[in-house]
Amino acid sequence: MTSPLVKPDPKLDLVLEREIDVPVELVWKAWTTPESIKQWFCPKPWIVTSCEIDLRPGGAFNTVMQSPEGQQFPNVGCYLDVVPNRRLIWTDTLLPGFRPAPKPFFTGALCLEPSVSGTRYTAIAIHGDEATRKSHEEMGFHHGWATVLDQLVAHIKASPR
Amino acid sequence: MTSPLVKPDPKLDLVLEREIDVPVELVWKAWTTPESIKQWFCPKPWIVTSCEIDLRPGGAFNTVMQSPEGQQFPNVGCYLDVVPNRRLIWTDTLLPGFRPAPKPFFTGALCLEPSVSGTRYTAIAIHGDEATRKSHEEMGFHHGWATVLDQLVAHIKASPR
Repeated sequence: MTSPLVKPDPKLDLVLEREIDVPVELVWKAWTTPESIKQWFCPKPWIVTSCEIDLRPGGAFNTVMQSPEGQQFPNVGCYLDVVPNRRLIWTDTLLPGFRPAPKPFFTGALCLEPSVSGTRYTAIAIHGDEATRKSHEEMGFHHGWATVLDQLVAHIKASPR
Repeated sequence: MTSPLVKPDPKLDLVLEREIDVPVELVWKAWTTPESIKQWFCPKPWIVTSCEIDLRPGGAFNTVMQSPEGQQFPNVGCYLDVVPNRRLIWTDTLLPGFRPAPKPFFTGALCLEPSVSGTRYTAIAIHGDEATRKSHEEMGFHHGWATVLDQLVAHIKASPR
């Protein structure tokens, strides 16, 4: 399910769509809990060393990723749309409080829909132009986002209910 | 009333705050109705020749301004936060649908609070850095936003209730 407001454009956007066998509520929880994000949000052996979540439009979605060599990469972003168990939209184009960000790159949209197997999972990276879409693709979008989705499912299955 | 999420920073932001003697509901209506926007939204003799409003987070807030010489200047933006009669936040940092915009400049916040005289009116221009704040100031922010507020009040008073 995508919001009518979010219409992926194949020239500009990148999409990962998959059926996964875990329920929407647990996917939502894993996406919106800092301690969970640290477990799966970047492809291992990279790790997330810190995560701040203020789950409301304008609230912070900040993470720090660390390379195997120990170099740290902070990501600062802002939630735009929060519909529990259905839709989460955030961007690095704005800082928390909706302030324009110094290095805008993309808006992310997570759309969840209950399905027979569990969840119809759609993650979209929305870019402003083709060059940015291409650079995100070359940075390894498809492999990276698929890998973290595997990690997300494994994390949910390994977590106590 | 400003949202706790919107905290003006004097180094980065520009603020117009004033008591006006018209009720919040009519200020809200004038800000969210295309036909009204055309009457007051840019300092005369400039005019707004078209206005598109899709009043929801991610929805379009597009205007075209025309100089006295007939040159047209389109502004494309996206609403971020819509709380009727209280708070309206939009940005040109994102296009409608939350897509990163080619020429990000500022986020605008309108905060309204009922007061004894009518409305406590606060309009804030939120920028990403000091240089952008300064350039907005040099473009005539203070005079321009004060002039359109005068036009807004005059428009409301001249409109049939």
